[in-house]
Amino acid sequence: MSARLHNFYAGPAVLPASVVEELGNELPNFGGSGVGLMEISHRSATFDAVVRSAQSRLRRLLGISEDYEVLFLQGGASMQFYQVPLNLVPNGGAVDYVDTGAWSTKAIKEAKAFTDVEVLWSGKDGGYSSVPQDDELEGRSEAVYLHYTTNNTIAGTQYRAEPAASVPLVADASSDICSRPMDVSRHAVIYAGAQKNLGPSGVTIVIVRRDVLGQTGRAMPTMLNYQTHIDKATLFNTPNTLGIFVVERVLAWLEGIGDLNDVAARNAEKGGLLYGELDRTGFWQPHAEVNARSLMNVTWRIANPSLESTFVEAAAGEGLVGLKGHRSVGGLRASIYNACPRESIEALVGFMKEFERTHG
Amino acid sequence: MSARLHNFYAGPAVLPASVVEELGNELPNFGGSGVGLMEISHRSATFDAVVRSAQSRLRRLLGISEDYEVLFLQGGASMQFYQVPLNLVPNGGAVDYVDTGAWSTKAIKEAKAFTDVEVLWSGKDGGYSSVPQDDELEGRSEAVYLHYTTNNTIAGTQYRAEPAASVPLVADASSDICSRPMDVSRHAVIYAGAQKNLGPSGVTIVIVRRDVLGQTGRAMPTMLNYQTHIDKATLFNTPNTLGIFVVERVLAWLEGIGDLNDVAARNAEKGGLLYGELDRTGFWQPHAEVNARSLMNVTWRIANPSLESTFVEAAAGEGLVGLKGHRSVGGLRASIYNACPRESIEALVGFMKEFERTHG
Repeated sequence: MSARLHNFYAGPAVLPASVVEELGNELPNFGGSGVGLMEISHRSATFDAVVRSAQSRLRRLLGISEDYEVLFLQGGASMQFYQVPLNLVPNGGAVDYVDTGAWSTKAIKEAKAFTDVEVLWSGKDGGYSSVPQDDELEGRSEAVYLHYTTNNTIAGTQYRAEPAASVPLVADASSDICSRPMDVSRHAVIYAGAQKNLGPSGVTIVIVRRDVLGQTGRAMPTMLNYQTHIDKATLFNTPNTLGIFVVERVLAWLEGIGDLNDVAARNAEKGGLLYGELDRTGFWQPHAEVNARSLMNVTWRIANPSLESTFVEAAAGEGLVGLKGHRSVGGLRASIYNACPRESIEALVGFMKEFERTHG
Repeated sequence: MSARLHNFYAGPAVLPASVVEELGNELPNFGGSGVGLMEISHRSATFDAVVRSAQSRLRRLLGISEDYEVLFLQGGASMQFYQVPLNLVPNGGAVDYVDTGAWSTKAIKEAKAFTDVEVLWSGKDGGYSSVPQDDELEGRSEAVYLHYTTNNTIAGTQYRAEPAASVPLVADASSDICSRPMDVSRHAVIYAGAQKNLGPSGVTIVIVRRDVLGQTGRAMPTMLNYQTHIDKATLFNTPNTLGIFVVERVLAWLEGIGDLNDVAARNAEKGGLLYGELDRTGFWQPHAEVNARSLMNVTWRIANPSLESTFVEAAAGEGLVGLKGHRSVGGLRASIYNACPRESIEALVGFMKEFERTHG
């Protein structure tokens, strides 16, 4: 098969075609340097310029002030579940968490190992089909932070805006970072695996406010201490150089679209196409409550669930892949991050209409 | 500039040209699947086959028995400096270390945070120009392991064989893994960043014997517990998928050369070319003692050190890059890992002869 399929995988996910093409050209010889993209030293001026450019682009897009550091680490959000409280919370210190799904649950588990965690709200009993409204969150004034998951890939829910809190926020923004504007200034830390909206897997973006560090009095393993990476301008040890190259190129592609309001408008339009089809007929049953619908991961069932495996198989036959829902929720899911082209969603909606005509 | 230069960087380092070319072709459409190399789900059958193949190839090449697990983690050897003792050593437990340079020193520092570390031997006073002989190592019988660095990138030294010990070994093999055979069965853990001999940066290979785990009675952060990754067949969370793809291709390339005896013979021949030139004339001053010379990183000074910066600059002008010695040692260094082609070393030796004629 020579054509690229319509890729709806939840991550690693589709990247901008122009970025993929550019990388293919740079692999053997980066920017005419005579050294390939994967083969260049992380201590070279060439690579240093890439890291600085990636940081600058992210600062511009998200509006990150100089009070914050921007780091490119490894280990994914799963490592941050532990690393955030380790760096920010003294032994037994209070932290508030919101449980909106599997990833929140994992974050809570790591923090509980050494802090006083209060779960302010959990969507578990409701199948994680919603996120809390502000009047449902009664945080503790003594909490070091309130942790939330901005977008939930499995259930397909997303906050409309940062939750209300009297304390700084910590956001796991893995699955919607740079898909829309964020009020960075309300956060102590924002972290995100890059493999959904910003690049390939293996790069973890950590945006941390300097003044929240150094408060725990705790000795930390060198690699888990944010200060280690801050002191060495995110090049303490060899980073995922190729991954950072790709992130830089994806950020450039985003800046080519405009600012994050432009990106958000584009995503709202793309999501609208798909939700429009889901709302058109009772044949489909969208999973998320309307006011918590994610524009990144759209989840639904078919009213007759026995048709779901037929749907996934027939869609794949038409070149639409990655539509099976996560095993914990079942049903169907289309991940439509920043780089998912409008044409892929149009192709999916066209297929859905045809499928409903045939099986409805 | 359109040609690829002769790349002597210490890592990330040159990769086999055939692998680089193959990747360029697979980036937009991996194996005709219609999904790009960076864009495919780590939960797909396609990627699963890649991980299994990489594990099998590494098992075959190094002769890894079923008593061991093979993991592809993140964070580099620097993360393993902490993760190894965390997983293997009860609080206050005894471990022996050998200090052969900067990387050993960092490993020792992380272990000292919670174990009883004895440094059996240090090359610090001798400028790390050698590695210990077996009769210089008096290990403790109660040690959980003896930790050593198989090859030292900065000083350019390398053990001829695994050190003598009555306890299991732990090896940081970052800079010479799969450059020659190893007696895996003597090791509790072998770990290595991939970016020198096996692929791009951002993949950490951990080979761990199952029966050394679960002995500490210690609760560990989920991501730092080897058992987490073993239980999920090294796919607990999203790994560096692109990096693992490349490692799999490099391992296939190595298997194309033969077994690790064939690879070692090839490396000995390549190293011999360069050391032959260094020994030919007093113009050059090799750094490492003869019986500790590395076949991966060759380090030397010029008898007249003021010529060294001229050398680096003139070499770059001839397309030979990455020859500046590490700042802590100074002088010159050529990193000539598995994938460094013989032609690059011949070009370097030719340049050196000419440089000596001109400046000698």
